Amino acid sequence: MDQELKKYDLIILGIDPGTNVMGYALLGITAKTPQLITMGVLKLAKFDDHYMRLHRIYERVTGLVEQYLPDELAIEAPFFGKNVQSMLKLGRAQGVAIAAALSRQVPITEYEPRKIKMAITGNGAASKEQVAVMLQRILKFGDDQLPDFLDATDALAAALCHFYERMKPATGHGAKSWKSFIASHPDRVKR
Amino acid sequence: MDQELKKYDLIILGIDPGTNVMGYALLGITAKTPQLITMGVLKLAKFDDHYMRLHRIYERVTGLVEQYLPDELAIEAPFFGKNVQSMLKLGRAQGVAIAAALSRQVPITEYEPRKIKMAITGNGAASKEQVAVMLQRILKFGDDQLPDFLDATDALAAALCHFYERMKPATGHGAKSWKSFIASHPDRVKR
Repeated sequence: MDQELKKYDLIILGIDPGTNVMGYALLGITAKTPQLITMGVLKLAKFDDHYMRLHRIYERVTGLVEQYLPDELAIEAPFFGKNVQSMLKLGRAQGVAIAAALSRQVPITEYEPRKIKMAITGNGAASKEQVAVMLQRILKFGDDQLPDFLDATDALAAALCHFYERMKPATGHGAKSWKSFIASHPDRVKR
Repeated sequence: MDQELKKYDLIILGIDPGTNVMGYALLGITAKTPQLITMGVLKLAKFDDHYMRLHRIYERVTGLVEQYLPDELAIEAPFFGKNVQSMLKLGRAQGVAIAAALSRQVPITEYEPRKIKMAITGNGAASKEQVAVMLQRILKFGDDQLPDFLDATDALAAALCHFYERMKPATGHGAKSWKSFIASHPDRVKR
């Protein structure tokens, strides 16, 4: 494991899978404070072949999991779409990303776009730009780290939404999971 | 590689992915004659958790690829469905099966159910039972090898359909692919 990554108590990989662009982001948590590790996009439109796109998604997610050893995967997953064709394609893109995480025993939680937007901006109908601006404010990263594509900030938003869910107190499963995570990963906790 | 498998010039894995039952079959080709190696189903309905189902699909397909070293994967892939929800789920099931093959560099070809039925029975609207009976006749296997679930024979039908496509003469890519396969895999050809 990269020495630099050891400072985090928890690393969350956020993925916004799509058939044209896949966004991804890594969020590191230290002493309950989230911090951007990195984010980016995988451009798929240049590949005509559907399988080539799926292969690229699989390779990239596997690569991210091996490089950053995330503890959890948060995935943006719309449940409704325009038509059955586009949903089948989206399902496949989600499926290969999920397989890459499953094959490395990384637990997955999925969030609907509306829920993610609500968690970050307080408005479930916020635009991608509004989400990006809010993320920049919360995580305090510079304009130079703002990506060209908003799919990356969408992925980061999924990761941060998952962190907020995990931190929720008592009633929910959030706090319990966090406790059980610490119990089962004492090596990952900074004392 | 299992000694028994060496007698085949080509091994095709057929998959009929679904979210309740996944069917699979292995077809071995010797001197242009297809032969059933094995077939079966993976029952998923008992798992409530969607990710558990996807994980099982991924594990089983990976296991089949590692055990039988298929040269190609033929997948039954409907392009139309009842609603977007079911298509998203089907897409995910297809996605994890595809990822398992892609991660082992197994080329994938997909066929619509209608095309498979047409190739096996001459009738694109044939029932699953008719497909099973015809497969039994073509591949000469006994009733004892008939599976309880018709998802297995559907998967076998996909594999056999793919074999027929590959054998198609001159005009199509079938014959060419077969030739190029032999050229690139001289060790797999029985002289």
